[in-house]
Amino acid sequence: MSGRFITFEGGEGCGKTTQIALLVEYLKAKGIEVVVTKEPGGTPIGQELRKMLCTGDKDKFDAVAEALLYYADRRIHMQQKVLPALKSGAWVVSDRFADSTMAYQYYGYNKRLSKEMLDKLYEMTVGDFYPDLTIILDIDPKIGLARSFARNNLSDAKETRHESRETEFHENLRRGFLEIAKTAERYAVLNADMSVDDLHERVVALVEKRFF
Amino acid sequence: MSGRFITFEGGEGCGKTTQIALLVEYLKAKGIEVVVTKEPGGTPIGQELRKMLCTGDKDKFDAVAEALLYYADRRIHMQQKVLPALKSGAWVVSDRFADSTMAYQYYGYNKRLSKEMLDKLYEMTVGDFYPDLTIILDIDPKIGLARSFARNNLSDAKETRHESRETEFHENLRRGFLEIAKTAERYAVLNADMSVDDLHERVVALVEKRFF
Repeated sequence: MSGRFITFEGGEGCGKTTQIALLVEYLKAKGIEVVVTKEPGGTPIGQELRKMLCTGDKDKFDAVAEALLYYADRRIHMQQKVLPALKSGAWVVSDRFADSTMAYQYYGYNKRLSKEMLDKLYEMTVGDFYPDLTIILDIDPKIGLARSFARNNLSDAKETRHESRETEFHENLRRGFLEIAKTAERYAVLNADMSVDDLHERVVALVEKRFF
Repeated sequence: MSGRFITFEGGEGCGKTTQIALLVEYLKAKGIEVVVTKEPGGTPIGQELRKMLCTGDKDKFDAVAEALLYYADRRIHMQQKVLPALKSGAWVVSDRFADSTMAYQYYGYNKRLSKEMLDKLYEMTVGDFYPDLTIILDIDPKIGLARSFARNNLSDAKETRHESRETEFHENLRRGFLEIAKTAERYAVLNADMSVDDLHERVVALVEKRFF
């Protein structure tokens, strides 16, 4: 595999989508072939799963069912999109990956699922394979949620299933991402409470340092 | 929990649906409250998953993704329908349960997934809980598939994703159910190549012997 796999993580409204678009533009300008994707929903079947996971009532199913659905989406995403792209030499930039499942299901839900269960699902689904770089955009949930609600008000999709959880969930989530960031070298945490351009500069600096 | 949980298993076209309807009628005539259900698709979200799992191309996703989706459906089914019904004292009769996942994914696919992975998913999803009685309707796949195709030709749903697999798959599947039947006392195998009424008589005899 010659491509690189970069994932962006963070709470609601942390600015992932904007930063990914800017990074992809930057990489393409360097002549790199880039596949930009997301979880859930990086494939046509994944889109159906995304709708199931991100819309409707927050209690429509429990944390175990949710984890299984996220991992089903992830398996299809890996097999049909991420791995073939990397194999062809392209770089893949994904809006969320497995760290989100750990952050939301384990930390956000305050350990309603065991870490062992999530690790086991990762092993079944992804195996011994990890992103080359994971950028965590860290932001105070109060700021992130305000951004996220504003965006959802402008959109028809109404992906508010996660946003509708209580503040404590989002505080746990943030702490979760910061905990996860300590577990491997591939993680980098950036403070996302700054202008789009300033944050992009920091993302580029990171990518340059790691890969060029 | 005072209700009983009875599951029906078997290959395509083995006659489960008809036999379940007759058994439910029989139990209701005895004054028992019965919830009749199925997997996949025993709940509204399960119906969406069923469509994903049972229609379209057989290679639309791989065995791992398939197992995760079946177990997501199962978790939702258990939490939202089976366990509450049993708790209320009703009996639950289900058209397929976890033995189908083992038979299709492990035996049908000729061990493309490990038994350990499927056992682990069961443990995560269902825990230490099993049906009280599992009736396996055994039939030569040639006969079963002919019935199943005839039925699908009359229906709009076109749930032919599994039927479209090769003969070897269905032979493996049949052997799988027979292997599974040896592993616990709760299983009973009935030869399903007989008239609807004769088979119903045998089902009733089994249920009477086990529970009354």
